[in-house]
Amino acid sequence: MYIPTFDDVKTAHERVKPWIHRTPVLTSSYFDDRTGAELFFKCENFQKAGAFKVRGASNAVFGLSRDKAKYGVATHSSGNHALSLSYAAGKRGITATVVMPRTAPDAKKDAVRGYGGMVRECEPSTAAREAMLNDVVDETGADFVHPYNDHRVIAGQGTCSLELHEDAGPLDAVVAPIGGGGMISGTCLTMSALSPQTKVYAAEPQNADDVYRSLREGRIIEDDAPQTIADGLKVSLRPRTWHFVSNYVADVLLVSEEEIAEAMYLVWQRMKIVIEPSSAVAVAAILKNRDLFAAKRVGVIVTGGNVDLTKLPWMQGLGVPK
Amino acid sequence: MYIPTFDDVKTAHERVKPWIHRTPVLTSSYFDDRTGAELFFKCENFQKAGAFKVRGASNAVFGLSRDKAKYGVATHSSGNHALSLSYAAGKRGITATVVMPRTAPDAKKDAVRGYGGMVRECEPSTAAREAMLNDVVDETGADFVHPYNDHRVIAGQGTCSLELHEDAGPLDAVVAPIGGGGMISGTCLTMSALSPQTKVYAAEPQNADDVYRSLREGRIIEDDAPQTIADGLKVSLRPRTWHFVSNYVADVLLVSEEEIAEAMYLVWQRMKIVIEPSSAVAVAAILKNRDLFAAKRVGVIVTGGNVDLTKLPWMQGLGVPK
Repeated sequence: MYIPTFDDVKTAHERVKPWIHRTPVLTSSYFDDRTGAELFFKCENFQKAGAFKVRGASNAVFGLSRDKAKYGVATHSSGNHALSLSYAAGKRGITATVVMPRTAPDAKKDAVRGYGGMVRECEPSTAAREAMLNDVVDETGADFVHPYNDHRVIAGQGTCSLELHEDAGPLDAVVAPIGGGGMISGTCLTMSALSPQTKVYAAEPQNADDVYRSLREGRIIEDDAPQTIADGLKVSLRPRTWHFVSNYVADVLLVSEEEIAEAMYLVWQRMKIVIEPSSAVAVAAILKNRDLFAAKRVGVIVTGGNVDLTKLPWMQGLGVPK
Repeated sequence: MYIPTFDDVKTAHERVKPWIHRTPVLTSSYFDDRTGAELFFKCENFQKAGAFKVRGASNAVFGLSRDKAKYGVATHSSGNHALSLSYAAGKRGITATVVMPRTAPDAKKDAVRGYGGMVRECEPSTAAREAMLNDVVDETGADFVHPYNDHRVIAGQGTCSLELHEDAGPLDAVVAPIGGGGMISGTCLTMSALSPQTKVYAAEPQNADDVYRSLREGRIIEDDAPQTIADGLKVSLRPRTWHFVSNYVADVLLVSEEEIAEAMYLVWQRMKIVIEPSSAVAVAAILKNRDLFAAKRVGVIVTGGNVDLTKLPWMQGLGVPK
């Protein structure tokens, strides 16, 4: 199992630069007042395809040799990784095949197609998904790019905190949401090299607390179909991300669904930016743990802004501040 | 009637700089593709108090002599001008009194109080509003800062396109929404001095088309209680803004409620920024008039981002693209 190094992050940054945005780092006097901290929001909601995932996907796609690239790439995902891989493949002029459960919303399938990806529908089970992905790879020779358990993807995600560190200066802490652990692993990789005194915190929904439990038990625990509005965070750790999480993450901070929704509402209302529920998990964790972050310089990874505007948490009464 | 000059805009810019954000100018490959134009979005939704109005309000407040300032300022408004005047007065440490109809939503009254303004409630009629404002001025000696029919306010709003011109470079056109005409007047003032070849277009809701009709008839026509989701644009021209509109505006572009809502939805979805319906009027006008703007460099004034997140147009089925 190859574990990427900070050199891989630097190589990735040069490789992906032409295909991604250098996203801004925003500040907010409202959130600084609320938390007592100095917060630096790295806004990957403004990223190409709407999320940080394009960093890892582009690193994988543009790192392929010409011989290998011509067979295309493939993945299973119904979220931001699927969009990002389709975007990157389109930019390189190769095919991206995305295996998605036939039960996934049409909007998600259409979004992948909108970025030029080919959708292959499977039955909604892990076994069916893996079987179809194997079929695709066998048929086409495509390179499988896992959403996070892939050293190229982790190195790509590490470019995000590289930019954050350059733009915000030395930080006492970085907080990012955790699902499968790709962003957190890249953050650990970069911060351990550039700024070892910076603590990396993973923010996780209470309703999908597999990482929290994994760290306490010292082994990967998988959630069984967790229910959370942070739909990008339902997946579980894999060996490459467990490596970084178990060795480097300072702590896992849990937040409730109501806390996620309220943090999301406040960011939209006060900062005037559209962030997805998964990103709000990090903000909620900082609001909830004032003592941990007050008087500190804290980076916040706003992972993405892909959200269904017709299905917002507060349309169901969740998250509107009293 | 004093008509402000570009020198007043430059003076205003130096005066208000410490109290406002230099807001970013964003671009969007999606909207460039859709319109065939090169668009530069001046993002006043990120401005202090959430809208461009803080420019004019701060210019008025910080331009007062110390002797005059101690009596405070007053206005009538239930929108962004009320927030902005309260914000600016708070920064100068003086009182802002805001006359609002007692029927205005509590959220708006609370927002004014949140910025430190004093709310005085009147009956919901123009006569009652003016009577109470006169009372306030008589009682306190406060300086009345009209939301737009005030040369200090117009000069302040002109600082917005000054920054846009500096950051985006020469433009073929600037499009801004029009209500009472404060922003459009400031834009005309600045562009006529800095870049006379730039055409200034006013974008207006069909449902509140008083400016469109005024220009065609050659005199100020007032709407009678117009109904539009662009609630910042319901007011009518006054002599100082009529001066600029009648002499300088290239054309008034009308858009429907559905077009406003759809433009707003698309900006949120694609650019990941929260803009208010009034701002979407300008975007809708560009989407609707492709032939006018294709292949041109076009500035778009995104006037503000103050919107009730629990009452979005698409919650009533308005504006979701097919």
